[in-house]
Amino acid sequence: MAVEIQPLLKPSRLRRRGGLLGECLAEFLGTFVLIAFGCGVVAMAVAGLPGSGRTSGPTTFFLGAGDWLLITWGWCMGVVFGVYVAGGVSGAHINPAVTLAFAVRRKFAWAKVLPYMGSQLLGAFAGAALVYGVYHDAINTFDAAAEGPKTNGHTLASFSIFATFPAPYFHGGIWGPLIDQIVGTAFLLMFVVAVIDLRNTGVKANLGPLIIGFAVAAIGMSYGANAGYAINPARDLGPRLFTWAAGWQDLAMPGSVSGAFSSYFWIPIVGPLIGGVIGVLVYDLFIGDILHLRAGAPPEPGRTRPTTGDEE
Amino acid sequence: MAVEIQPLLKPSRLRRRGGLLGECLAEFLGTFVLIAFGCGVVAMAVAGLPGSGRTSGPTTFFLGAGDWLLITWGWCMGVVFGVYVAGGVSGAHINPAVTLAFAVRRKFAWAKVLPYMGSQLLGAFAGAALVYGVYHDAINTFDAAAEGPKTNGHTLASFSIFATFPAPYFHGGIWGPLIDQIVGTAFLLMFVVAVIDLRNTGVKANLGPLIIGFAVAAIGMSYGANAGYAINPARDLGPRLFTWAAGWQDLAMPGSVSGAFSSYFWIPIVGPLIGGVIGVLVYDLFIGDILHLRAGAPPEPGRTRPTTGDEE
Amino acid sequence: MAVEIQPLLKPSRLRRRGGLLGECLAEFLGTFVLIAFGCGVVAMAVAGLPGSGRTSGPTTFFLGAGDWLLITWGWCMGVVFGVYVAGGVSGAHINPAVTLAFAVRRKFAWAKVLPYMGSQLLGAFAGAALVYGVYHDAINTFDAAAEGPKTNGHTLASFSIFATFPAPYFHGGIWGPLIDQIVGTAFLLMFVVAVIDLRNTGVKANLGPLIIGFAVAAIGMSYGANAGYAINPARDLGPRLFTWAAGWQDLAMPGSVSGAFSSYFWIPIVGPLIGGVIGVLVYDLFIGDILHLRAGAPPEPGRTRPTTGDEE
Amino acid sequence: MAVEIQPLLKPSRLRRRGGLLGECLAEFLGTFVLIAFGCGVVAMAVAGLPGSGRTSGPTTFFLGAGDWLLITWGWCMGVVFGVYVAGGVSGAHINPAVTLAFAVRRKFAWAKVLPYMGSQLLGAFAGAALVYGVYHDAINTFDAAAEGPKTNGHTLASFSIFATFPAPYFHGGIWGPLIDQIVGTAFLLMFVVAVIDLRNTGVKANLGPLIIGFAVAAIGMSYGANAGYAINPARDLGPRLFTWAAGWQDLAMPGSVSGAFSSYFWIPIVGPLIGGVIGVLVYDLFIGDILHLRAGAPPEPGRTRPTTGDEE
Repeated sequence: MAVEIQPLLKPSRLRRRGGLLGECLAEFLGTFVLIAFGCGVVAMAVAGLPGSGRTSGPTTFFLGAGDWLLITWGWCMGVVFGVYVAGGVSGAHINPAVTLAFAVRRKFAWAKVLPYMGSQLLGAFAGAALVYGVYHDAINTFDAAAEGPKTNGHTLASFSIFATFPAPYFHGGIWGPLIDQIVGTAFLLMFVVAVIDLRNTGVKANLGPLIIGFAVAAIGMSYGANAGYAINPARDLGPRLFTWAAGWQDLAMPGSVSGAFSSYFWIPIVGPLIGGVIGVLVYDLFIGDILHLRAGAPPEPGRTRPTTGDEE
Repeated sequence: MAVEIQPLLKPSRLRRRGGLLGECLAEFLGTFVLIAFGCGVVAMAVAGLPGSGRTSGPTTFFLGAGDWLLITWGWCMGVVFGVYVAGGVSGAHINPAVTLAFAVRRKFAWAKVLPYMGSQLLGAFAGAALVYGVYHDAINTFDAAAEGPKTNGHTLASFSIFATFPAPYFHGGIWGPLIDQIVGTAFLLMFVVAVIDLRNTGVKANLGPLIIGFAVAAIGMSYGANAGYAINPARDLGPRLFTWAAGWQDLAMPGSVSGAFSSYFWIPIVGPLIGGVIGVLVYDLFIGDILHLRAGAPPEPGRTRPTTGDEE
Repeated sequence: MAVEIQPLLKPSRLRRRGGLLGECLAEFLGTFVLIAFGCGVVAMAVAGLPGSGRTSGPTTFFLGAGDWLLITWGWCMGVVFGVYVAGGVSGAHINPAVTLAFAVRRKFAWAKVLPYMGSQLLGAFAGAALVYGVYHDAINTFDAAAEGPKTNGHTLASFSIFATFPAPYFHGGIWGPLIDQIVGTAFLLMFVVAVIDLRNTGVKANLGPLIIGFAVAAIGMSYGANAGYAINPARDLGPRLFTWAAGWQDLAMPGSVSGAFSSYFWIPIVGPLIGGVIGVLVYDLFIGDILHLRAGAPPEPGRTRPTTGDEE
Repeated sequence: MAVEIQPLLKPSRLRRRGGLLGECLAEFLGTFVLIAFGCGVVAMAVAGLPGSGRTSGPTTFFLGAGDWLLITWGWCMGVVFGVYVAGGVSGAHINPAVTLAFAVRRKFAWAKVLPYMGSQLLGAFAGAALVYGVYHDAINTFDAAAEGPKTNGHTLASFSIFATFPAPYFHGGIWGPLIDQIVGTAFLLMFVVAVIDLRNTGVKANLGPLIIGFAVAAIGMSYGANAGYAINPARDLGPRLFTWAAGWQDLAMPGSVSGAFSSYFWIPIVGPLIGGVIGVLVYDLFIGDILHLRAGAPPEPGRTRPTTGDEE
């Protein structure tokens, strides 16, 4: 069964020359790009665009469908180019949930799991720092003009540029956002393994990164409102740690004063790690024939090697 | 004639190993993805996004062009990834109208028609249940805050997340929505058979699922307002049965109290089944040369086998 | 020079079997699809969507950026699927300006020019009739509710669903809209001949129709406001004749009472025919080396045959 | 190291026949297309669309997320088709920052750098002239109706159609916009060299121009607000010189009366030239293995020749 499934995301000629250090550099850069563009587009919608900054109170600020389209396309592009940049070296997981799921179900080496995850987290932290560096004036101007409660001069609206928090209709409950993160990441992994599965309709012409970006856009469009579609522990924790260090403090992490959302940080870590594995399992159950429901014709020779559509 | 036409949507190596049970599992999962993202994006626009929920009365609530773009791209993505997930196993009909039209005009086995349709309906029901599970808090908060008539505490606006109903300007007439469903589904099938027809400009590099998603986006953009572009009996009936069971009652189906739209349910079933067959017939008449208007050069050998562009 | 250029848009196996009648049927169907979706999306924005129909006076009604995005993507999709449907048989000109330019500069047979143009015009007329058939209730409800001057009960806003007219800032001048149509169509043809030119970066994997759709989206986004980017004589005249017959009368064509725009009809006919030829000429001058500015290496054998990227 | 990297953007059969004059003609036309569509879409959002023209004061006018989406897609399309038109002849740099970075790190001939840059600047100037020619009536009508300070009858809003200026929250500071331009252009070049690097996941089927257009859309969505994402010296200076000549005067360049932004012109020249080189360096450091961190397997023969994915 598993041997029939494509075990790796994006092998290429670069990959064969890449040692673990090279792969970690690629994961760092790919996740850096992801966050630089993902958090960047939220900075645009919240604080950058003339006409942005429609805050109203501590936990809600208005985002219409136009804003949401801008945000989902922006994150989509962050994924697309994060994967294009890193794909040939490391497979461009740029997400610990992808790395874990690939270790569990796609023979990704367990020894590489922690180095990959660490590189992703560092890349995400650096990406958030870049966004704050570039949008420093916009964010501070926005926060200064905003009304409502502030932490160290910063608002929840400007915090939303960097990390995620649950919608107000959950009233602080845990299960709603946790299920949301599990479901969103399950779909992400289900789509990733489908799109790179050459036995299925795996994308060719090296357009997989584009379609994987569309997968994240899909999740943002359809499952973004509950909890900001982190679906990636590094995507949320990296920028969260940055904002904690940069002054948002207990809006980001539990501190001296326990903020309303500061105890939330573990949900976009645990939820995606669980959800990613579930997503691959569901794919393998329904599509990958791990129950041997079908006639057992052997896979064609030459297609079980770990290629993934990069080569036409 | 027909023998020159590509008879199947997406054969692949997986397909050759897939018995009917495996194909039904794939149809279930593909339609589940379709509905999970399609109904999910409407949940976002209606109840999830801050700034959503602009209800005004029982049958109309404001959706501007930005909302509509969000909704059409979201459904588009549901199609794209429903087809990518299931394509290699079952051909990813994920729509009884596709299954029927392919049986009538593309040699799809009649014995598989009912199993396919049943799997699609079950997948759509399960997708709607997932959407309600994930958006339970958002939807209930929205319905509680909404004004106007409610059924069992639910509004027509929240019903619109799941199933379709005709625009108010039809004043309850049958023919307008029925023609709308026939026309929309005819275009859907016309585009599907064009995009997979390798004698025509059939899409290669396994990007057919993307373009088929764009076809549904096109229909939503240009033919979505009249009756919500179900163009798929499973897409409408599955979520409709779910809402009927989950409390919307006679907003969804005829019950003890006959709701305004409850007798409407058969139109997005019958219309698409008729329209799909018409769409393939129109394609075959105008493009497929079933009238032998052209010179009768025989098809090239090696291209009449049932491949569909999956293999470059 | 010209022999190095791809002379045809989309030859395929279907084409080789297609006589002129088959090609005309394909042009009819392709242009029918173009108009059915292009005029359909404007019907959505103007009369279909809840929240549409923001009329204010005879010559202006509000269309924001969101509406314009919806309209440009909708027309884009009309082009994409019009070309996919007809591409393999007729080359999918679906535009008399393309047909004329290909006859002048790409060796398209002059004997086919008038049959192609006639089929395109008939297809556009039929597409407009379909849009009115499907949106009959929406349009009439919209017109009944609108304020301001009406012709036979119809408004300029509902006329704008079908055909084009110049922006009010031209004050009825001819040269502004005429130059607009020439420029827009010149870009259209420049992009079409670039995208199908395999000596250049011609699109492969049969994704040319998608990119050609994007070309029309580009023109709509950047050059749509002046005069509605007809850039296609059949696209404007066909629906215009339909509205003239269906009751809009002198809003569409000069009649017993000379309407404000009725004498405008010739501009989206003459402008595109001129502009298309200019566009190919500019491409050939700057890119196609008709002045022999470069070293005269002969074209590679096997690439001067009239293929266009349909075959990988 | 460098020899492993694809040295050129888009070689093709046309290129092999192209002398420097032919390449300059292609760069001229490609940059002309870029500006004609990029500045064109801003003209639409500011002055063309009914409902546009929401000015309020000298330095701010409202652009919501919908406007920004329209603008970013429009510029994206300008890039896509500028690259498709010129790609096969000159490699379609259409940006002096690309030309410089390719000379520094991709063996582009230094002797061609100034001719390329000059052609790009002329093309951008001509593109701006075309936009003013086509939108003359719209712009003048807009400026006449606008309130607030004017220079020679023109507003900063109409100037924004053509060239860029920093957001008001910079309060005239230099470093914010300069860093913004460096960062934006660094990402542009990083993505360009990734997307054309066939050892990585380089885009095939000649869809590179589309993905490069998406790269510019990404930068616009995530890094557009600070300073209008010029990221291209020709894109800004060409239209700036045109507006200076056409009447905007000291809004565009330092003149007799020193305008508020007229001393800004050098930032979108210097920033992109620096940023582009940095972007390729970062790519080569993290992905291209210039530090020899990985095992030194030699590149496969047949892949080090200067092809770039144009040929499947």
